[in-house]
Amino acid sequence: MENIKMKVVLSLFLLWNISLLMCAQSVAIQPDSYKANANVTDLNMKMCIKYPMEADGIVRLSKIEVYPQYLDEYIKYAAEVGEVSLCTEPGVLTMYAVQEKENPCMVTILETYATREAYEKHVASEHFQKYKKGTLHMVKSLILSDQIPLNPNNKVINYIQ
Amino acid sequence: MENIKMKVVLSLFLLWNISLLMCAQSVAIQPDSYKANANVTDLNMKMCIKYPMEADGIVRLSKIEVYPQYLDEYIKYAAEVGEVSLCTEPGVLTMYAVQEKENPCMVTILETYATREAYEKHVASEHFQKYKKGTLHMVKSLILSDQIPLNPNNKVINYIQ
Repeated sequence: MENIKMKVVLSLFLLWNISLLMCAQSVAIQPDSYKANANVTDLNMKMCIKYPMEADGIVRLSKIEVYPQYLDEYIKYAAEVGEVSLCTEPGVLTMYAVQEKENPCMVTILETYATREAYEKHVASEHFQKYKKGTLHMVKSLILSDQIPLNPNNKVINYIQ
Repeated sequence: MENIKMKVVLSLFLLWNISLLMCAQSVAIQPDSYKANANVTDLNMKMCIKYPMEADGIVRLSKIEVYPQYLDEYIKYAAEVGEVSLCTEPGVLTMYAVQEKENPCMVTILETYATREAYEKHVASEHFQKYKKGTLHMVKSLILSDQIPLNPNNKVINYIQ
């Protein structure tokens, strides 16, 4: 009888440990559970936490025409500054660049900064200065066109995978 | 002595239940745990699951000039079609519209479709046809400019909050 009681106690200990293990696992698999909806796993692993958009934030379309002979080199600079800015600057909310299919020298970048201060910090950063100085001779024209989001409910998350 | 043993058994049961409760809670709070990084909670609550981008997918900048007298009405149509498309169409990956600060009649929409089929399905949809027919007389000019993302590692999630 004594023996049976001890077995009951031990099996309850075992059950408790198993349930604690389940608990730990369910926390561990949280990121994967999001993969189906979006690559937020990468967002969490690689990206810095972002500041919320403030009243003095900036939404901008930067339109750049690159000299054809420098296009490949320009793309390397632009990709690098985009990745470093998105991953390391909490105030850089988007930096998404596309090239015209018909004329890949025409680049458009959707740039979003949480505050004016965040924008000024970005422009002063080492990685932006490297891009700016390194590509100055590659850029035929640059138009900075500030924008207003058409629908405040329509949100964008931009991240490096 | 018998009584003590039973107390031990009961308290172990209690511990086991508490740990199971912890386990359930840790799963329940998953969405909140993402709020700090991004409003992915809203994404999960409101948005349909999205298809992955395929080789025949489309990234496009649609540039629309709206007649000033119709701008307010156009914005309502554009906001609605964007919300319905993003929330209900698995193949519509982005539909993010901005207006020039200097001239709000100049609208640019970043449109991303997972496949050509998804694009054709979107254009044939009731909500797009409502927008298209409803705004035809409001649109002064429309340029559809297909694009190539400059950096394949640079990803965008677009959702309705």
